[in-house]
Amino acid sequence: MAFKTLGAKAAAALDRELMSTGAFSIDQLMELAGLSVSQAVYRVHPIHKGRRVLVAVGPGNNGGDGLVAARHLRHYGYHPTVYYPKRSKNELYQRLAKQLEDLDVPFVDDFPKALSSADHVVDAIFGFSFSGEVREPFPAVINAMAETKIPVTSVDAPSSWDIEEGPPKSGVGSNFHPNFLISLTAPKPLVKHFKGRHFIGGRCVPKTSPILFVFLGTTDSSPPPKKRFVTPAIAAKYDFDVPEYEGLDQVVEVGSGGQKL
Amino acid sequence: MAFKTLGAKAAAALDRELMSTGAFSIDQLMELAGLSVSQAVYRVHPIHKGRRVLVAVGPGNNGGDGLVAARHLRHYGYHPTVYYPKRSKNELYQRLAKQLEDLDVPFVDDFPKALSSADHVVDAIFGFSFSGEVREPFPAVINAMAETKIPVTSVDAPSSWDIEEGPPKSGVGSNFHPNFLISLTAPKPLVKHFKGRHFIGGRCVPKTSPILFVFLGTTDSSPPPKKRFVTPAIAAKYDFDVPEYEGLDQVVEVGSGGQKL
Repeated sequence: MAFKTLGAKAAAALDRELMSTGAFSIDQLMELAGLSVSQAVYRVHPIHKGRRVLVAVGPGNNGGDGLVAARHLRHYGYHPTVYYPKRSKNELYQRLAKQLEDLDVPFVDDFPKALSSADHVVDAIFGFSFSGEVREPFPAVINAMAETKIPVTSVDAPSSWDIEEGPPKSGVGSNFHPNFLISLTAPKPLVKHFKGRHFIGGRCVPKTSPILFVFLGTTDSSPPPKKRFVTPAIAAKYDFDVPEYEGLDQVVEVGSGGQKL
Repeated sequence: MAFKTLGAKAAAALDRELMSTGAFSIDQLMELAGLSVSQAVYRVHPIHKGRRVLVAVGPGNNGGDGLVAARHLRHYGYHPTVYYPKRSKNELYQRLAKQLEDLDVPFVDDFPKALSSADHVVDAIFGFSFSGEVREPFPAVINAMAETKIPVTSVDAPSSWDIEEGPPKSGVGSNFHPNFLISLTAPKPLVKHFKGRHFIGGRCVPKTSPILFVFLGTTDSSPPPKKRFVTPAIAAKYDFDVPEYEGLDQVVEVGSGGQKL
Protein backbone atom coordinates (compact mmCIF):
# COMPACT_ATOMS: atom_id res chain seq x y z
CA MET A 1 0.00 0.00 0.00
CA ALA A 2 1.33 3.44 -0.86
CA PHE A 3 1.66 6.35 1.50
CA LYS A 4 -0.72 9.16 0.78
CA THR A 5 1.09 12.18 -0.52
CA LEU A 6 0.98 15.91 -0.04
CA GLY A 7 0.76 18.07 -3.17
CA ALA A 8 2.78 21.22 -3.71
CA LYS A 9 0.03 23.65 -2.82
CA ALA A 10 -1.12 21.58 0.12
CA ALA A 11 2.46 21.39 1.42
CA ALA A 12 2.71 25.17 1.21
CA ALA A 13 -0.61 25.54 3.01
CA LEU A 14 0.54 23.13 5.73
CA ASP A 15 3.70 25.19 6.26
CA ARG A 16 1.63 28.34 6.56
CA GLU A 17 -0.71 26.62 8.96
CA LEU A 18 2.13 25.34 11.14
CA MET A 19 3.50 28.86 11.38
CA SER A 20 0.14 30.51 12.10
CA THR A 21 -2.26 28.42 14.14
CA GLY A 22 0.47 25.84 14.77
CA ALA A 23 2.56 28.55 16.45
CA PHE A 24 5.88 27.28 15.13
CA SER A 25 8.58 29.73 14.09
CA ILE A 26 10.44 29.18 10.86
CA ASP A 27 13.63 28.86 12.93
CA GLN A 28 12.12 25.96 14.81
CA LEU A 29 10.72 24.18 11.77
CA MET A 30 13.93 24.57 9.82
CA GLU A 31 16.01 23.33 12.75
CA LEU A 32 13.85 20.20 13.01
CA ALA A 33 13.81 19.66 9.24
CA GLY A 34 17.57 20.06 8.93
CA LEU A 35 18.11 17.77 11.90
CA SER A 36 16.02 15.12 10.13
CA VAL A 37 18.06 15.51 6.97
CA SER A 38 21.30 15.09 8.91
CA GLN A 39 19.97 11.92 10.53
CA ALA A 40 18.94 10.46 7.16
CA VAL A 41 22.45 11.10 5.82
CA TYR A 42 23.95 9.50 8.93
CA ARG A 43 21.75 6.45 8.28
CA VAL A 44 22.55 6.00 4.57
CA HIS A 45 26.13 7.19 4.72
CA PRO A 46 27.72 6.37 8.10
CA ILE A 47 30.96 8.18 8.85
CA HIS A 48 33.18 5.19 8.03
CA LYS A 49 32.07 5.56 4.39
CA GLY A 50 33.78 8.93 4.23
CA ARG A 51 33.36 12.21 5.99
CA ARG A 52 33.32 14.57 3.05
CA VAL A 53 29.72 15.62 2.48
CA LEU A 54 29.07 18.25 -0.18
CA VAL A 55 25.84 20.15 0.49
CA ALA A 56 24.31 21.95 -2.52
CA VAL A 57 22.20 24.77 -1.14
CA GLY A 58 19.47 26.55 -3.08
CA PRO A 59 18.14 30.05 -2.50
CA GLY A 60 14.99 29.16 -0.52
CA ASN A 61 13.70 27.05 2.38
CA ASN A 62 15.07 23.81 0.94
CA GLY A 63 18.49 25.43 1.02
CA GLY A 64 17.93 26.53 4.62
CA ASP A 65 17.24 22.91 5.58
CA GLY A 66 20.54 22.04 3.92
CA LEU A 67 22.42 24.67 5.92
CA VAL A 68 21.01 23.32 9.18
CA ALA A 69 21.81 19.74 8.12
CA ALA A 70 25.40 20.70 7.34
CA ARG A 71 25.81 22.07 10.88
CA HIS A 72 24.48 18.91 12.52
CA LEU A 73 26.64 16.76 10.23
CA ARG A 74 29.65 18.76 11.38
CA HIS A 75 28.73 18.06 14.99
CA TYR A 76 28.45 14.33 14.22
CA GLY A 77 32.01 14.40 12.93
CA TYR A 78 31.55 14.75 9.16
CA HIS A 79 33.47 17.32 7.17
CA PRO A 80 30.76 19.11 5.21
CA THR A 81 31.46 21.56 2.41
CA VAL A 82 28.78 23.96 1.26
CA TYR A 83 28.03 25.14 -2.26
CA TYR A 84 25.71 28.12 -1.88
CA PRO A 85 25.87 30.27 -5.02
CA LYS A 86 22.67 32.31 -4.57
CA ARG A 87 22.78 33.60 -1.03
CA SER A 88 19.50 34.78 0.38
CA LYS A 89 19.40 38.23 1.97
CA ASN A 90 16.92 36.84 4.47
CA GLU A 91 18.26 37.27 7.99
CA LEU A 92 17.59 33.66 8.99
CA TYR A 93 19.68 32.25 6.14
CA GLN A 94 22.46 34.69 6.91
CA ARG A 95 22.51 33.45 10.48
CA LEU A 96 22.52 29.80 9.41
CA ALA A 97 25.49 30.49 7.15
CA LYS A 98 27.30 32.33 9.94
CA GLN A 99 26.81 29.37 12.26
CA LEU A 100 28.59 27.21 9.68
CA GLU A 101 31.39 29.70 9.21
CA ASP A 102 31.97 29.65 12.96
CA LEU A 103 32.45 25.90 12.68
CA ASP A 104 35.02 26.44 9.91
CA VAL A 105 32.81 24.74 7.36
CA PRO A 106 34.15 25.75 3.95
CA PHE A 107 31.95 27.44 1.36
CA VAL A 108 33.01 26.68 -2.20
CA ASP A 109 32.21 28.25 -5.57
CA ASP A 110 33.25 25.46 -7.92
CA PHE A 111 30.72 22.65 -7.67
CA PRO A 112 32.37 20.16 -10.08
CA LYS A 113 35.70 20.56 -8.33
CA ALA A 114 34.11 20.08 -4.91
CA LEU A 115 32.24 17.05 -6.20
CA SER A 116 35.46 15.42 -7.30
CA SER A 117 36.59 15.16 -3.69
CA ALA A 118 33.25 14.39 -2.03
CA ASP A 119 32.05 11.11 -0.51
CA HIS A 120 28.37 12.04 -0.47
CA VAL A 121 26.19 14.84 -1.83
CA VAL A 122 23.15 16.45 -0.25
CA ASP A 123 20.83 18.04 -2.80
CA ALA A 124 19.12 20.90 -0.96
CA ILE A 125 18.60 23.08 -4.00
CA PHE A 126 14.85 23.06 -4.67
CA GLY A 127 11.96 21.78 -2.58
CA PHE A 128 8.20 21.59 -2.85
CA SER A 129 7.81 25.16 -4.04
CA PHE A 130 9.84 24.54 -7.19
CA SER A 131 8.18 24.74 -10.55
CA GLY A 132 9.12 25.73 -14.07
CA GLU A 133 12.66 26.04 -15.28
CA VAL A 134 15.91 25.47 -13.48
CA ARG A 135 17.72 28.79 -13.36
CA GLU A 136 21.42 29.49 -13.53
CA PRO A 137 23.77 28.40 -12.11
CA PHE A 138 21.89 25.24 -11.16
CA PRO A 139 21.48 23.37 -14.49
CA ALA A 140 25.13 22.36 -14.50
CA VAL A 141 24.93 21.40 -10.84
CA ILE A 142 21.94 19.15 -11.40
CA ASN A 143 23.61 17.62 -14.46
CA ALA A 144 26.68 16.91 -12.37
CA MET A 145 24.58 15.27 -9.65
CA ALA A 146 22.79 13.22 -12.32
CA GLU A 147 26.06 11.94 -13.75
CA THR A 148 28.18 11.39 -10.68
CA LYS A 149 28.71 7.98 -9.13
CA ILE A 150 28.89 9.59 -5.69
CA PRO A 151 25.70 8.87 -3.74
CA VAL A 152 23.20 11.72 -3.57
CA THR A 153 20.53 12.40 -0.95
CA SER A 154 17.78 14.78 -2.04
CA VAL A 155 15.84 16.88 0.43
CA ASP A 156 12.06 16.71 -0.08
CA ALA A 157 12.39 16.52 -3.88
CA PRO A 158 15.08 15.66 -6.40
CA SER A 159 15.89 19.17 -7.60
CA SER A 160 14.36 19.94 -11.00
CA TRP A 161 11.60 17.33 -10.58
CA ASP A 162 8.02 18.52 -10.83
CA ILE A 163 6.44 18.05 -7.42
CA GLU A 164 3.38 16.34 -8.88
CA GLU A 165 4.74 14.75 -12.06
CA GLY A 166 8.29 13.73 -11.17
CA PRO A 167 11.30 13.96 -13.47
CA PRO A 168 11.08 16.27 -16.47
CA LYS A 169 10.56 14.49 -19.80
CA SER A 170 13.64 16.11 -21.27
CA GLY A 171 16.40 18.55 -20.45
CA VAL A 172 17.91 19.34 -17.08
CA GLY A 173 17.01 16.73 -14.48
CA SER A 174 15.44 14.23 -16.85
CA ASN A 175 18.21 11.79 -16.00
CA PHE A 176 18.58 12.77 -12.34
CA HIS A 177 17.77 9.86 -10.05
CA PRO A 178 19.25 10.39 -6.60
CA ASN A 179 20.00 7.37 -4.45
CA PHE A 180 18.19 8.62 -1.37
CA LEU A 181 15.28 10.93 -0.67
CA ILE A 182 14.07 12.40 2.59
CA SER A 183 10.50 13.68 2.44
CA LEU A 184 9.77 16.36 5.00
CA THR A 185 6.55 15.84 6.98
CA ALA A 186 4.95 13.77 4.19
CA PRO A 187 5.93 12.40 0.77
CA LYS A 188 5.11 14.52 -2.26
CA PRO A 189 3.41 12.99 -5.32
CA LEU A 190 6.73 12.75 -7.19
CA VAL A 191 7.73 9.82 -4.95
CA LYS A 192 5.94 7.40 -7.25
CA HIS A 193 8.78 8.00 -9.69
CA PHE A 194 11.52 7.59 -7.10
CA LYS A 195 13.24 4.21 -6.91
CA GLY A 196 15.87 4.68 -4.20
CA ARG A 197 15.75 4.45 -0.43
CA HIS A 198 13.13 6.78 0.97
CA PHE A 199 12.83 8.39 4.40
CA ILE A 200 10.31 10.64 6.03
CA GLY A 201 11.42 13.24 8.56
CA GLY A 202 10.38 16.41 10.28
CA ARG A 203 8.71 15.19 13.39
CA CYS A 204 6.69 18.24 14.28
CA VAL A 205 3.16 17.35 13.29
CA PRO A 206 1.11 15.21 15.64
CA LYS A 207 -0.21 12.00 14.20
CA THR A 208 -3.69 13.16 15.05
CA SER A 209 -3.28 16.63 13.64
CA PRO A 210 -6.37 18.18 12.15
CA ILE A 211 -4.00 19.86 9.73
CA LEU A 212 -2.89 16.50 8.38
CA PHE A 213 -6.45 15.30 8.35
CA VAL A 214 -7.20 17.95 5.84
CA PHE A 215 -4.09 17.80 3.72
CA LEU A 216 -2.86 14.27 3.53
CA GLY A 217 -4.33 12.12 0.86
CA THR A 218 -5.00 14.99 -1.48
CA THR A 219 -2.96 16.89 -3.96
CA ASP A 220 -5.66 19.49 -4.16
CA SER A 221 -4.78 22.98 -3.06
CA SER A 222 -7.96 24.07 -1.34
CA PRO A 223 -9.25 21.72 1.29
CA PRO A 224 -12.88 22.31 2.14
CA PRO A 225 -13.03 24.58 5.18
CA LYS A 226 -15.61 22.41 6.87
CA LYS A 227 -12.98 19.71 7.30
CA ARG A 228 -10.40 21.98 8.77
CA PHE A 229 -11.28 21.86 12.43
CA VAL A 230 -12.00 18.23 13.03
CA THR A 231 -11.21 16.99 16.50
CA PRO A 232 -8.14 14.87 17.22
CA ALA A 233 -10.50 11.98 17.96
CA ILE A 234 -11.94 12.08 14.48
CA ALA A 235 -8.52 12.54 12.95
CA ALA A 236 -7.25 9.55 14.90
CA LYS A 237 -10.14 7.45 13.63
CA TYR A 238 -9.05 8.01 10.05
CA ASP A 239 -5.42 7.16 10.83
CA PHE A 240 -3.36 9.35 8.56
CA ASP A 241 -0.18 8.23 6.96
CA VAL A 242 2.20 9.67 9.48
CA PRO A 243 4.84 6.99 9.91
CA GLU A 244 5.70 5.41 13.23
CA TYR A 245 8.99 6.88 14.29
CA GLU A 246 11.21 4.70 16.46
CA GLY A 247 12.66 5.89 19.74
CA LEU A 248 14.49 9.18 19.41
CA ASP A 249 14.73 9.02 15.62
CA GLN A 250 13.76 12.10 13.67
CA VAL A 251 13.52 10.03 10.47
CA VAL A 252 11.87 6.79 9.49
CA GLU A 253 12.59 4.71 6.42
CA VAL A 254 9.66 3.87 4.19
CA GLY A 255 9.47 1.88 0.99
CA SER A 256 10.78 2.95 -2.35
CA GLY A 257 8.32 4.95 -4.40
CA GLY A 258 6.29 5.78 -1.31
CA GLN A 259 5.27 2.20 -0.54
CA LYS A 260 4.92 1.24 3.09
CA LEU A 261 7.66 -1.10 4.26
CA MET B 1 39.60 14.58 36.60
CA ALA B 2 36.71 16.97 36.86
CA PHE B 3 35.11 18.82 34.01
CA LYS B 4 35.70 22.50 34.04
CA THR B 5 32.56 24.38 34.86
CA LEU B 6 30.79 27.50 33.69
CA GLY B 7 29.74 29.99 36.36
CA ALA B 8 26.40 31.77 36.38
CA LYS B 9 27.65 35.01 34.90
CA ALA B 10 29.81 33.28 32.33
CA ALA B 11 26.86 31.09 31.29
CA ALA B 12 24.74 34.20 30.79
CA ALA B 13 27.52 35.84 28.79
CA LEU B 14 27.87 32.71 26.64
CA ASP B 15 24.14 32.76 25.90
CA ARG B 16 24.36 36.40 24.90
CA GLU B 17 27.37 35.66 22.75
CA LEU B 18 25.67 32.75 20.99
CA MET B 19 22.74 35.00 20.16
CA SER B 20 24.84 37.92 18.98
CA THR B 21 28.08 36.99 17.25
CA GLY B 22 27.04 33.31 17.27
CA ALA B 23 23.97 34.25 15.21
CA PHE B 24 21.66 31.75 16.92
CA SER B 25 18.06 32.67 17.62
CA ILE B 26 16.56 31.89 20.99
CA ASP B 27 14.07 29.62 19.18
CA GLN B 28 16.92 27.57 17.81
CA LEU B 29 18.88 27.35 21.05
CA MET B 30 15.80 26.44 23.05
CA GLU B 31 14.78 23.79 20.54
CA LEU B 32 18.22 22.20 20.75
CA ALA B 33 18.33 22.48 24.55
CA GLY B 34 14.86 20.97 24.97
CA LEU B 35 15.70 18.20 22.52
CA SER B 36 18.76 17.35 24.65
CA VAL B 37 16.64 17.25 27.78
CA SER B 38 14.14 14.91 26.13
CA GLN B 39 16.96 12.59 25.08
CA ALA B 40 18.40 12.51 28.60
CA VAL B 41 14.99 11.56 29.97
CA TYR B 42 14.65 8.86 27.31
CA ARG B 43 18.03 7.52 28.40
CA VAL B 44 17.39 7.44 32.15
CA HIS B 45 13.72 6.61 31.96
CA PRO B 46 12.91 4.48 28.90
CA ILE B 47 9.24 4.25 27.99
CA HIS B 48 8.78 0.78 29.49
CA LYS B 49 9.38 2.32 32.93
CA GLY B 50 6.19 4.33 32.53
CA ARG B 51 5.01 6.98 30.16
CA ARG B 52 3.72 9.56 32.59
CA VAL B 53 6.28 12.36 32.78
CA LEU B 54 5.39 15.40 34.84
CA VAL B 55 7.25 18.51 33.68
CA ALA B 56 7.53 21.35 36.20
CA VAL B 57 8.01 24.54 34.21
CA GLY B 58 9.36 27.78 35.63
CA PRO B 59 8.80 31.29 34.32
CA GLY B 60 12.07 31.73 32.37
CA ASN B 61 14.37 30.06 29.88
CA ASN B 62 14.75 26.91 31.96
CA GLY B 63 10.98 26.55 31.76
CA GLY B 64 11.09 27.06 28.01
CA ASP B 65 13.56 24.19 27.72
CA GLY B 66 11.06 22.11 29.67
CA LEU B 67 8.21 23.01 27.31
CA VAL B 68 10.28 21.95 24.29
CA ALA B 69 11.33 18.74 26.05
CA ALA B 70 7.70 17.90 26.81
CA ARG B 71 6.83 18.18 23.11
CA HIS B 72 9.65 15.87 22.02
CA LEU B 73 8.75 13.40 24.79
CA ARG B 74 5.20 13.37 23.46
CA HIS B 75 6.53 12.56 19.98
CA TYR B 76 8.61 9.69 21.43
CA GLY B 77 5.43 8.19 22.88
CA TYR B 78 5.46 9.44 26.48
CA HIS B 79 2.42 11.04 28.05
CA PRO B 80 3.76 14.28 29.48
CA THR B 81 1.79 16.51 31.80
CA VAL B 82 2.86 20.10 32.34
CA TYR B 83 2.74 22.14 35.54
CA TYR B 84 3.26 25.76 34.47
CA PRO B 85 1.88 28.07 37.14
CA LYS B 86 3.63 31.32 36.16
CA ARG B 87 3.09 31.68 32.45
CA SER B 88 5.39 34.05 30.67
CA LYS B 89 3.83 36.72 28.48
CA ASN B 90 6.78 36.31 26.14
CA GLU B 91 5.60 35.34 22.68
CA LEU B 92 8.05 32.44 22.34
CA TYR B 93 6.81 30.75 25.51
CA GLN B 94 3.22 31.27 24.45
CA ARG B 95 3.97 29.51 21.18
CA LEU B 96 5.76 26.63 22.91
CA ALA B 97 2.72 26.16 25.17
CA LYS B 98 0.37 26.27 22.17
CA GLN B 99 2.39 23.58 20.42
CA LEU B 100 1.81 21.35 23.45
CA GLU B 101 -1.89 22.14 23.59
CA ASP B 102 -2.16 21.10 19.94
CA LEU B 103 -0.72 17.73 20.95
CA ASP B 104 -3.35 17.44 23.71
CA VAL B 105 -0.69 17.61 26.41
CA PRO B 106 -2.54 18.43 29.64
CA PHE B 107 -1.61 21.45 31.76
CA VAL B 108 -2.33 20.94 35.44
CA ASP B 109 -2.61 23.29 38.42
CA ASP B 110 -2.23 20.85 41.29
CA PHE B 111 1.38 19.70 41.46
CA PRO B 112 1.08 17.23 44.37
CA LYS B 113 -1.92 15.57 42.75
CA ALA B 114 -0.13 15.31 39.39
CA LEU B 115 2.93 13.95 41.15
CA SER B 116 0.92 11.15 42.70
CA SER B 117 0.25 9.68 39.25
CA ALA B 118 3.62 10.40 37.59
CA ASP B 119 6.37 7.95 36.67
CA HIS B 120 9.08 10.57 36.26
CA VAL B 121 9.50 14.28 36.98
CA VAL B 122 11.40 16.87 34.96
CA ASP B 123 12.49 19.87 37.03
CA ALA B 124 12.62 22.79 34.61
CA ILE B 125 11.81 25.46 37.14
CA PHE B 126 15.04 27.44 37.60
CA GLY B 127 18.28 27.42 35.64
CA PHE B 128 21.60 29.18 35.74
CA SER B 129 20.08 32.62 36.21
CA PHE B 130 18.49 31.67 39.53
CA SER B 131 19.65 33.33 42.71
CA GLY B 132 18.18 34.36 45.98
CA GLU B 133 14.89 33.06 47.34
CA VAL B 134 12.46 30.60 45.83
CA ARG B 135 9.24 32.48 45.20
CA GLU B 136 5.67 31.24 45.41
CA PRO B 137 4.28 28.88 44.34
CA PHE B 138 7.53 26.98 43.90
CA PRO B 139 8.66 26.24 47.51
CA ALA B 140 5.99 23.56 47.91
CA VAL B 141 6.85 22.15 44.47
CA ILE B 142 10.53 21.85 45.31
CA ASN B 143 9.70 20.31 48.69
CA ALA B 144 7.50 17.77 46.93
CA MET B 145 10.29 16.93 44.45
CA ALA B 146 12.72 16.59 47.38
CA GLU B 147 10.47 14.15 49.20
CA THR B 148 9.04 12.03 46.39
CA LYS B 149 10.39 8.59 45.56
CA ILE B 150 9.60 9.22 41.89
CA PRO B 151 12.82 9.85 39.94
CA VAL B 152 13.56 13.48 39.11
CA THR B 153 15.66 14.90 36.27
CA SER B 154 16.77 18.49 36.74
CA VAL B 155 17.53 20.78 33.82
CA ASP B 156 20.87 22.62 34.16
CA ALA B 157 20.48 23.01 37.92
CA PRO B 158 18.45 21.41 40.70
CA SER B 159 15.94 24.20 41.26
CA SER B 160 16.69 26.26 44.37
CA TRP B 161 20.40 25.36 44.32
CA ASP B 162 22.88 28.18 44.15
CA ILE B 163 24.67 27.96 40.80
CA GLU B 164 28.08 28.33 42.41
CA GLU B 165 27.55 26.90 45.89
CA GLY B 166 25.05 24.09 45.39
CA PRO B 167 22.21 23.20 47.75
CA PRO B 168 21.10 25.82 50.25
CA LYS B 169 22.27 25.22 53.81
CA SER B 170 18.73 25.32 55.12
CA GLY B 171 15.16 25.84 54.03
CA VAL B 172 13.63 25.10 50.63
CA GLY B 173 15.84 22.86 48.54
CA SER B 174 18.34 22.00 51.27
CA ASN B 175 17.21 18.37 51.04
CA PHE B 176 16.57 18.33 47.26
CA HIS B 177 18.84 15.84 45.52
CA PRO B 178 17.47 14.91 42.10
CA ASN B 179 18.45 11.55 40.61
CA PHE B 180 19.54 12.97 37.28
CA LEU B 181 20.94 16.23 35.98
CA ILE B 182 21.42 17.46 32.46
CA SER B 183 23.85 20.35 32.18
CA LEU B 184 23.27 22.49 29.12
CA THR B 185 26.43 23.30 27.10
CA ALA B 186 28.67 22.89 30.13
CA PRO B 187 28.34 21.90 33.81
CA LYS B 188 27.82 24.65 36.34
CA PRO B 189 29.92 24.81 39.53
CA LEU B 190 27.07 23.29 41.57
CA VAL B 191 27.79 19.88 40.00
CA LYS B 192 30.44 19.18 42.59
CA HIS B 193 27.56 18.72 45.06
CA PHE B 194 25.53 16.52 42.73
CA LYS B 195 25.75 12.77 43.28
CA GLY B 196 23.37 11.33 40.67
CA ARG B 197 23.79 10.48 36.99
CA HIS B 198 24.96 13.49 35.06
CA PHE B 199 24.57 14.35 31.38
CA ILE B 200 25.71 17.20 29.21
CA GLY B 201 23.56 18.36 26.30
CA GLY B 202 22.95 21.24 23.96
CA ARG B 203 25.17 20.45 21.03
CA CYS B 204 25.44 23.87 19.49
CA VAL B 205 28.89 25.06 20.44
CA PRO B 206 31.84 23.81 18.45
CA LYS B 207 34.53 22.03 20.41
CA THR B 208 37.01 24.55 19.15
CA SER B 209 34.86 27.58 19.85
CA PRO B 210 36.71 30.72 20.83
CA ILE B 211 33.68 31.44 23.00
CA LEU B 212 34.31 28.32 25.02
CA PHE B 213 37.98 29.07 25.09
CA VAL B 214 37.17 32.17 26.98
CA PHE B 215 34.40 30.96 29.21
CA LEU B 216 35.11 27.42 30.23
CA GLY B 217 37.18 26.99 33.30
CA THR B 218 36.24 30.30 34.78
CA THR B 219 33.36 31.55 36.83
CA ASP B 220 34.38 35.08 36.14
CA SER B 221 31.99 37.29 34.26
CA SER B 222 34.34 39.36 32.19
CA PRO B 223 36.81 37.41 30.11
CA PRO B 224 39.76 39.46 28.99
CA PRO B 225 39.01 40.77 25.48
CA LYS B 226 42.44 39.79 24.23
CA LYS B 227 41.49 36.13 24.59
CA ARG B 228 38.21 36.45 22.80
CA PHE B 229 39.27 35.93 19.23
CA VAL B 230 41.69 33.09 19.45
CA THR B 231 41.86 30.88 16.41
CA PRO B 232 40.30 27.42 16.38
CA ALA B 233 43.79 25.99 16.19
CA ILE B 234 44.77 27.58 19.47
CA ALA B 235 41.49 26.63 21.06
CA ALA B 236 41.98 23.05 19.89
CA LYS B 237 45.42 22.99 21.42
CA TYR B 238 44.00 23.72 24.85
CA ASP B 239 41.34 21.02 24.49
CA PHE B 240 38.32 22.41 26.28
CA ASP B 241 36.01 20.25 28.22
CA VAL B 242 33.37 19.81 25.57
CA PRO B 243 32.43 16.14 25.79
CA GLU B 244 32.66 13.73 22.88
CA TYR B 245 29.13 13.13 21.74
CA GLU B 246 28.40 9.74 20.15
CA GLY B 247 26.73 9.41 16.76
CA LEU B 248 23.48 11.34 16.59
CA ASP B 249 23.18 11.80 20.35
CA GLN B 250 22.37 15.25 21.63
CA VAL B 251 23.46 14.23 25.13
CA VAL B 252 26.45 12.51 26.63
CA GLU B 253 26.73 10.97 30.07
CA VAL B 254 29.55 12.18 32.26
CA GLY B 255 30.55 11.20 35.76
CA SER B 256 28.71 12.11 38.90
CA GLY B 257 29.74 15.41 40.41
CA GLY B 258 31.21 16.53 37.11
CA GLN B 259 33.94 13.89 36.98
CA LYS B 260 34.92 12.55 33.60
CA LEU B 261 33.78 8.97 33.03
